[in-house]
Amino acid sequence: MNYKNFPMVPRVVFGRGSFNQINDILAPKRTSIYAPFIFLLDNVFKNNPWLTSRIKLSYDDRIIFVSSKEEPKTSQVDELVEDIILKSKERPSGIIGIGGGSLLDMAKAVALLITNEGDAQQYQGWDLIKNPGIYHVGIPTISGTGAEVSRTTILTGPKLKLGINSDYTPFDQVILDPELTAGVPKQQWFYTGMDCYVHCVESLNGTYLNEFSKTYGEKSFDLCKEIFLDDNLSEEEAQNKLMMASWHGGMSIAYSQVGVAHAMSYGLSFLLGVKHGIGNCLVFDHLEEFYPEGVKIFKQMKEKHGIELPTGICKDLSDDDFDTMIRVALSLEPLWENAVGKNWKQTITPEKLRGIYKKI
Amino acid sequence: MNYKNFPMVPRVVFGRGSFNQINDILAPKRTSIYAPFIFLLDNVFKNNPWLTSRIKLSYDDRIIFVSSKEEPKTSQVDELVEDIILKSKERPSGIIGIGGGSLLDMAKAVALLITNEGDAQQYQGWDLIKNPGIYHVGIPTISGTGAEVSRTTILTGPKLKLGINSDYTPFDQVILDPELTAGVPKQQWFYTGMDCYVHCVESLNGTYLNEFSKTYGEKSFDLCKEIFLDDNLSEEEAQNKLMMASWHGGMSIAYSQVGVAHAMSYGLSFLLGVKHGIGNCLVFDHLEEFYPEGVKIFKQMKEKHGIELPTGICKDLSDDDFDTMIRVALSLEPLWENAVGKNWKQTITPEKLRGIYKKI
Repeated sequence: MNYKNFPMVPRVVFGRGSFNQINDILAPKRTSIYAPFIFLLDNVFKNNPWLTSRIKLSYDDRIIFVSSKEEPKTSQVDELVEDIILKSKERPSGIIGIGGGSLLDMAKAVALLITNEGDAQQYQGWDLIKNPGIYHVGIPTISGTGAEVSRTTILTGPKLKLGINSDYTPFDQVILDPELTAGVPKQQWFYTGMDCYVHCVESLNGTYLNEFSKTYGEKSFDLCKEIFLDDNLSEEEAQNKLMMASWHGGMSIAYSQVGVAHAMSYGLSFLLGVKHGIGNCLVFDHLEEFYPEGVKIFKQMKEKHGIELPTGICKDLSDDDFDTMIRVALSLEPLWENAVGKNWKQTITPEKLRGIYKKI
Repeated sequence: MNYKNFPMVPRVVFGRGSFNQINDILAPKRTSIYAPFIFLLDNVFKNNPWLTSRIKLSYDDRIIFVSSKEEPKTSQVDELVEDIILKSKERPSGIIGIGGGSLLDMAKAVALLITNEGDAQQYQGWDLIKNPGIYHVGIPTISGTGAEVSRTTILTGPKLKLGINSDYTPFDQVILDPELTAGVPKQQWFYTGMDCYVHCVESLNGTYLNEFSKTYGEKSFDLCKEIFLDDNLSEEEAQNKLMMASWHGGMSIAYSQVGVAHAMSYGLSFLLGVKHGIGNCLVFDHLEEFYPEGVKIFKQMKEKHGIELPTGICKDLSDDDFDTMIRVALSLEPLWENAVGKNWKQTITPEKLRGIYKKI
């Protein structure tokens, strides 16, 4: 039996206001005055001096604003990499992703593609990356995705929605500043928080589970229940706890795997561009068969926060559309194996997935 | 406000039997055929082919057996470093510590002292190490100390018992194989497990606590209660869980600090050579004033496992002896500040400590 030698983020700062330390953290990592730091910021921070004024740009450093309206694409990564290489006198000193899961994944992918030749889509899969990426830093501004600790970067390519999973993917540095999550709109807060909750349910109910993943998953699960079901937390406490829930949830799946909701949500995203957080919720809502207890609690959380999921998303889709979603979902073999076991192909048929998609 | 940029162990394997992967993990780290791997093994594994036969020695690799009867000393580290440098054709490829906290701390210290000139005692304190150590790997064979994740290596020097705390101290690689803890004698299992339990109590009740430390500490605390108070676990489950409790407990104090039991137990060790695990228990048993709930549960755990602590340890000590213990304990300022707050010197007097030591 062969156990994964799991790469952990080697440096982490946690604390309200810790984002103020960004310049001090980066300074010793500058390789030359011609080697800029490239900050990838979510568009929502344009004209937000509360955040941007704290980033000190020196020499050729620059901020690139990136939209996270759509899920990150391999083509977007390729364009960014080309732009960065063309406009930088030397290989950059580092890439800093500031935003939600999309921005974090984009930063990881860009850092890898600067040192690995070719297009991003070539590396979608497991352990295809050959060279370490350049120094990359993740600073989440919304909690739940686990992208801050994971060894993947989920991208939508021409053929698949699939991660670049590799030991070189995790960030070299993460800054966890719960203050940065203060302005997140309620719906997005809920959907992204549920990404974390679903990670826990899928990890804790998976066949890949071991005691390492279990302890992280259980803690994250308990935090999610506290945050989304209890009424005892101040806003600040809830922000702090959700940031840690995301971290532990990410650690839990990092050593195990996600499951049915993620596999099917990827299909939904690939075809319709549905964002990952809400996509998970749309699918998870119909997964009582796989996760009875988890789905029951999810419905309580939805109700408590007055969240109504959109319906009829799949009602006008053609047979070809369903086939595309099913193809993408079934391509994620490790997720199914984790969820259902080695013989998953006996029960997870295209017809079964079509039945679930039709309810959405 | 300035938050610590905490160094995490960048690679970890978890799993029963994962020790079998040791040779595959080390192979790519060999810097040359003249640069040996040095395995520091606890003496108890002498003539234990179940463990030693799985270590493949190549070229000039060697195993050095080290006694952990006494707490690790700075002089012992200096001797090992000298021996290793003299007998190796090149700077070693790595140091692998296999054993309990003593062996793990020894391995960390040796790896640091190979690249930092002078004696180990010069580096006792906070952030005195100048250069990264050589590659070092930690493989715990008893659970509880947290030494596998910590940024310290606790050593008894001529003047103090104090750690070499630095960002270079943590292991580059940890292998968590709960099978290796199978043969631990019951008393030692309990005392070392209580090291973990005390870490949690001291972290969770400390003034340094933040949400990061809290979530790790809470999980570890819950695991300790499950392991030491409930009757629902198989032997294997209990081993797995205690290994993870130790890991999370170590993570919790790494971003906060320990407290009263540790400070006073260092005094006891320094003067009398009392081992750390039992030393903690001897002190903690009398700390109701500081940790009422924690001590209550500790007494339940002791009772459940029929553990009777030795008594009268300090009854024949001279005034000078007490002064020595008190001096060592009070030198650990961050521990007191964490336990009692910034104004700890107002209440933590030599007389107060003498009173507690006299009960032991």
